[in-house]
Amino acid sequence: MSTTIDVAPELENELVLARIIDAPREKIFRAWTDPEILKQWFVPKPWTISKVEMDVRPGGSSLIVMRDPDGNEYPNPGIFLEVVENERIVTTDAFTGAWTPSQKPFMTMILTLEDAGKGRTRYIARALHWNAEDREAHEKMGFHEGWGQCADQLEEIAATL
Amino acid sequence: MSTTIDVAPELENELVLARIIDAPREKIFRAWTDPEILKQWFVPKPWTISKVEMDVRPGGSSLIVMRDPDGNEYPNPGIFLEVVENERIVTTDAFTGAWTPSQKPFMTMILTLEDAGKGRTRYIARALHWNAEDREAHEKMGFHEGWGQCADQLEEIAATL
Repeated sequence: MSTTIDVAPELENELVLARIIDAPREKIFRAWTDPEILKQWFVPKPWTISKVEMDVRPGGSSLIVMRDPDGNEYPNPGIFLEVVENERIVTTDAFTGAWTPSQKPFMTMILTLEDAGKGRTRYIARALHWNAEDREAHEKMGFHEGWGQCADQLEEIAATL
Repeated sequence: MSTTIDVAPELENELVLARIIDAPREKIFRAWTDPEILKQWFVPKPWTISKVEMDVRPGGSSLIVMRDPDGNEYPNPGIFLEVVENERIVTTDAFTGAWTPSQKPFMTMILTLEDAGKGRTRYIARALHWNAEDREAHEKMGFHEGWGQCADQLEEIAATL
């Protein structure tokens, strides 16, 4: 199990998930950027991911289709804003391509990976929203539980890489 | 005077300003990216610009403060998403820094500069919005007249560079 650490939000409409993950940041970065690996941990089970397309570079599109246990599919289109190998990934759903506005800008995600020693990583995922309503909706959708479970699933997968 | 050309919007909530400008694209790019030059043409006169700060690179912030004839100031914070020298500039007001969400994402601007021969440039500025309401509001604020007047002012300035 990943270890929860205490990191406060920096911005007004931010949710933050901070963990020490027992895997080096190279493996975590790979699990975030290799579609076949991402599929195995990116949604809380028993949900699954039926499709992943990612063009991992600033301005590159991504599409992640999530599937619930009844087989309903939920496409999540977005774009990469910034990619620094093994260190940092920034994505947003405000665009579906470079630079096509999405139906609604809901959030921007900043992931930072820092070496925490002994092959572990300080893993901080910040979800930034454009207003308080969206932040609250995201929290009620189960941000902390969902992203926390995914962090644990990520740790398990990383151990196999 | 710059020459209006007929270019249709590509996206649903887009406004487009298309001109042939009698200046080479290097000078137009410079007029867009040098704060002291930008100040001289970027708002329709008699409005003025009291302050310009620009970090011209993907993820770099920009702040343009417009001033009306009564002295009221209107700050416009934003960010560069893409910069290709002499060819392409993409900005948005959805972020005020890398990657701080703004108060409200209103538009993304894609400017493309193409060589039109004889030292002229095919100048296309596309304003993309997240919904029809914002596109309509922008049009009513005088998008075509305002951006058109600015294109003429830009042409005049470029002739002096």
